[in-house]
Amino acid sequence: MANAMLLPVLLSFLILPFSAMALTQDFCVADLSCSDTPAGYPCKASVTAGDFAYHGLATAGNTTNLIKAAVTPAFVGQFPGVNGLGISAARLDIAVGGVVPLHTHPAASELLFVTEGTILAGFISSGANTPYTKTLYPGDIMVFPQGLLHYQYNGGSTPAVALVAFGGPNPGLQITDFALFANNLPSPVVEKVTFLDDATVKKLKSVLGGSG
Amino acid sequence: MANAMLLPVLLSFLILPFSAMALTQDFCVADLSCSDTPAGYPCKASVTAGDFAYHGLATAGNTTNLIKAAVTPAFVGQFPGVNGLGISAARLDIAVGGVVPLHTHPAASELLFVTEGTILAGFISSGANTPYTKTLYPGDIMVFPQGLLHYQYNGGSTPAVALVAFGGPNPGLQITDFALFANNLPSPVVEKVTFLDDATVKKLKSVLGGSG
Amino acid sequence: MANAMLLPVLLSFLILPFSAMALTQDFCVADLSCSDTPAGYPCKASVTAGDFAYHGLATAGNTTNLIKAAVTPAFVGQFPGVNGLGISAARLDIAVGGVVPLHTHPAASELLFVTEGTILAGFISSGANTPYTKTLYPGDIMVFPQGLLHYQYNGGSTPAVALVAFGGPNPGLQITDFALFANNLPSPVVEKVTFLDDATVKKLKSVLGGSG
Amino acid sequence: MANAMLLPVLLSFLILPFSAMALTQDFCVADLSCSDTPAGYPCKASVTAGDFAYHGLATAGNTTNLIKAAVTPAFVGQFPGVNGLGISAARLDIAVGGVVPLHTHPAASELLFVTEGTILAGFISSGANTPYTKTLYPGDIMVFPQGLLHYQYNGGSTPAVALVAFGGPNPGLQITDFALFANNLPSPVVEKVTFLDDATVKKLKSVLGGSG
Amino acid sequence: MANAMLLPVLLSFLILPFSAMALTQDFCVADLSCSDTPAGYPCKASVTAGDFAYHGLATAGNTTNLIKAAVTPAFVGQFPGVNGLGISAARLDIAVGGVVPLHTHPAASELLFVTEGTILAGFISSGANTPYTKTLYPGDIMVFPQGLLHYQYNGGSTPAVALVAFGGPNPGLQITDFALFANNLPSPVVEKVTFLDDATVKKLKSVLGGSG
Amino acid sequence: MANAMLLPVLLSFLILPFSAMALTQDFCVADLSCSDTPAGYPCKASVTAGDFAYHGLATAGNTTNLIKAAVTPAFVGQFPGVNGLGISAARLDIAVGGVVPLHTHPAASELLFVTEGTILAGFISSGANTPYTKTLYPGDIMVFPQGLLHYQYNGGSTPAVALVAFGGPNPGLQITDFALFANNLPSPVVEKVTFLDDATVKKLKSVLGGSG
Repeated sequence: MANAMLLPVLLSFLILPFSAMALTQDFCVADLSCSDTPAGYPCKASVTAGDFAYHGLATAGNTTNLIKAAVTPAFVGQFPGVNGLGISAARLDIAVGGVVPLHTHPAASELLFVTEGTILAGFISSGANTPYTKTLYPGDIMVFPQGLLHYQYNGGSTPAVALVAFGGPNPGLQITDFALFANNLPSPVVEKVTFLDDATVKKLKSVLGGSG
Repeated sequence: MANAMLLPVLLSFLILPFSAMALTQDFCVADLSCSDTPAGYPCKASVTAGDFAYHGLATAGNTTNLIKAAVTPAFVGQFPGVNGLGISAARLDIAVGGVVPLHTHPAASELLFVTEGTILAGFISSGANTPYTKTLYPGDIMVFPQGLLHYQYNGGSTPAVALVAFGGPNPGLQITDFALFANNLPSPVVEKVTFLDDATVKKLKSVLGGSG
Repeated sequence: MANAMLLPVLLSFLILPFSAMALTQDFCVADLSCSDTPAGYPCKASVTAGDFAYHGLATAGNTTNLIKAAVTPAFVGQFPGVNGLGISAARLDIAVGGVVPLHTHPAASELLFVTEGTILAGFISSGANTPYTKTLYPGDIMVFPQGLLHYQYNGGSTPAVALVAFGGPNPGLQITDFALFANNLPSPVVEKVTFLDDATVKKLKSVLGGSG
Repeated sequence: MANAMLLPVLLSFLILPFSAMALTQDFCVADLSCSDTPAGYPCKASVTAGDFAYHGLATAGNTTNLIKAAVTPAFVGQFPGVNGLGISAARLDIAVGGVVPLHTHPAASELLFVTEGTILAGFISSGANTPYTKTLYPGDIMVFPQGLLHYQYNGGSTPAVALVAFGGPNPGLQITDFALFANNLPSPVVEKVTFLDDATVKKLKSVLGGSG
Repeated sequence: MANAMLLPVLLSFLILPFSAMALTQDFCVADLSCSDTPAGYPCKASVTAGDFAYHGLATAGNTTNLIKAAVTPAFVGQFPGVNGLGISAARLDIAVGGVVPLHTHPAASELLFVTEGTILAGFISSGANTPYTKTLYPGDIMVFPQGLLHYQYNGGSTPAVALVAFGGPNPGLQITDFALFANNLPSPVVEKVTFLDDATVKKLKSVLGGSG
Repeated sequence: MANAMLLPVLLSFLILPFSAMALTQDFCVADLSCSDTPAGYPCKASVTAGDFAYHGLATAGNTTNLIKAAVTPAFVGQFPGVNGLGISAARLDIAVGGVVPLHTHPAASELLFVTEGTILAGFISSGANTPYTKTLYPGDIMVFPQGLLHYQYNGGSTPAVALVAFGGPNPGLQITDFALFANNLPSPVVEKVTFLDDATVKKLKSVLGGSG
């Protein structure tokens, strides 16, 4: 009864501060139609629960390709709900014999959860060029520090699956071979900066779709 | 042959800059025997590949408890390799009927991967108190913004499992009911700040091990 | 005289670098008509001294309401001058018997200056659920760490006033009771995630304007 | 009864994860006996509620001095509870005719609440050297962007008091006159970098306790 | 041959993930036609190699002015490629007898490389007003902490040149004399906040183009 | 005279706040004898002007080696004054025909000033593997975004020299060839993650001092 009496008063309390606070930023779902900024995309005006969930990692990636592996990203470009939240995800499918070749994520550290199969993974420190390698089984996790070269490959006789999280909404993915061979960087330049010979460079350019 | 001749020269190049650069910080595995700092623990002097992998999430948590759920953390305290890397992990096991009660992570956003079962999850915005709720199936992911109240419960008829990543090495976990009832905060204070009645507060204090 | 002669030269010095540097960002007063970004609002083009001062905290908030208290914010939404500057403010008025109920600020720590009356304040740690409580008198200050549950209530026999600062321009305010009861989150869900009984949940939903 | 039965189970749940989580960093009260780090002091091992409150701003500073003003800081050095929390405070007392001379805070923006008297305050932008000045009365607030030159003086006929918050635990305070004249920087150097004449520099060095 | 066969498969791999990842933010060249944000300018849509190089520091600045020195900036306003990258540059030319007067950079630390001549440089700490001064020769570097007052002058008998880097894309430059005397801040205010006498203030206002 | 009278009063003002503020952190020169932390080294207790200057870049590096180039770092390990200041430096000497091979800096963007000779430099974006290449002459600057693969080589007929700044005190340097070939990572692993053939891998391991 007392409560019923107080209700109108309380509601006026509710209405005032909360309309005044309508600008509070709990989250900032990316409006991908706008230009990005150094801190992420501008926020979408109207948001629903669907913006915070993503189904694209439920399906296995297609591993019928040269590397017999697929990386399915849920970065801010695919999953705008992570914009500004300091986290994103990906799914890794690696067929028997498959590999995620040597690569870096320039903008975030990576945390890998193995859910199926056996994954051989490693990263290399910059200071001393020390390799840190592990054989990972379902349930194991491994962390790869930001910006360091690392790789994963299927070390078993069944397909491997891993879920991957990144400590940033847009970690990037730079695969060394693609950076070197899947573009028009002239072969002499590639040779100069890698010490690879001309035949090797030209062969890999041909395989990976590069020119020059 | 030319290469063989150049080898000593090159090695002197290798040795000089790399001994000079021995202090480069690619990572900073926590030395948990030291005091923490606002940016994380001091770095351990000697590191191996094992510091970057963790096996503690491979085993299901014990859900034989009141909430019929278990949160198994791989934060910096359990997995020192994530120190300074902006990421950490946890495993969530929820039996049929189980729940991870209303809680926040004060220091990081959360990203949940459902691997088994059905999870009903939601968070509540601060500005407008809007609930954002989803039913999640295996393969689905959902993001929970830093510091906002959220919950997960098993919405199906089989046990549910989720892997969880956080955008920080030490996200914290504040379960509202435990904060209110699992300590010696006097009942009149709890009642005053929650509008709950004395009987409810005392009952929950009794259930959750609090006093006062 | 010498100075007078040098004046034209100097002015050309002034004009060149300073027109070139017209883009220097000393501050970034929010243009609230634009979309927010994860780092704050885009900067307003034309700025005056008035953008850096705010008068809205000079007047006591209206405490004639259920909680007998009022929080008057000077966040970026009310005081656009703080955008990007890592600080904001609020005023707290608490009548005799009034309370700022259990709440968090997801995006900043809080620093409270008591200017009138007696305030009982406390926060609860996440790890061990330890309450940290103090009785504060005029001139006392207290700090509440980011994201942790806390409360303030008038512990005296006269009205209490506090000035509050936050270590961010948009700290957010999530009042636990409002998050649970002032919306349409279904009662069975609220009960599940809080262990409150149906009658308690329905009563509080009714008092706080919620449904479901 | 059901609850009573479940209690032991629940407590085991409580004990396991929470002892495991004893390292969670909700806060990091400074251990001032340790060396500082770029992110703040190492955390004190044992903490009480008293670490989060501070009484040093309750008393007026002594304004019987040349500037007829006193700045009483509650930075991390005086109030170790703010370490790592992105906020700190100070109290400003300005007698009639008193002034806080031209100064900067290199490491945080400032937010000033006037509680008594009239304060004339201003800051100067770097790009265009534009002054932004305001006359502030009790209840008014003003923000001073990080690193920019600013000042406050008593513009009325009664003592003025202000509470000040900073968006960092250790903002620093560099008073231009003290930086120039209250040390042993040789007068010719001071003259060269300020265009002041020798007599002016020597007089101010004498007044402010400098030499050379 | 095997490779040739696999090529179409691989290319489909290349095309899928990389079109999906077209939003990856490796860099964010400033679109200076947009409003700035607290984290920098929105990113330009179309980028070429020319956006990452800048020629404006190749030419000596004109030192025929009162201070016999020139600061040529390559901040984000001149060199949009540094937007969001945490670095920028400038060139310093100081004729014999020239000086870069007392100044601060509110938003970044500075690193100076001397390439020609002799530069006397110093900064002053805020806490104890301690001057830290050095005579620098070609090849020497010196670092000036963010926000602290510092200066450089030619200490030799030939022109001096330095290249300067800043740990931020938009460091700002606040020259104390220009902040005080090159605007319309009233002389009595300047005198009050600096303890300079009226004649000195008015003379410097006249020299530096100020009024009032 | 009035000033002389006020002097004792003022000095008491000086002494009080400045002893109280002895903890202000204007800078944090690294104490390299302590463990690093994620935010940098603990601060050295006693500091002189010499801590902020460094002479190690004044001398040309020795380019009599396989790559005909030398990178001389002034990172926090060599130049402890930059600790916590968000900037560091290096000197690059490249003989005719020399090259700084493909590499990344995992922890900072790079800004290169060419001071002598002609440098061909480039980086490769991660998203689209686009090369961004430039020929740089004395006075030119170029920026290389954090974590992206890049290279520099002498493109002229005289020795080349560049000064380099990094937007962090400890940027790291990971040379791809050294990461792959200058350690004991087994050849089959290297082949798997790079698509290089066994002969190439073994030859480069031999040249660069690796085994396995």
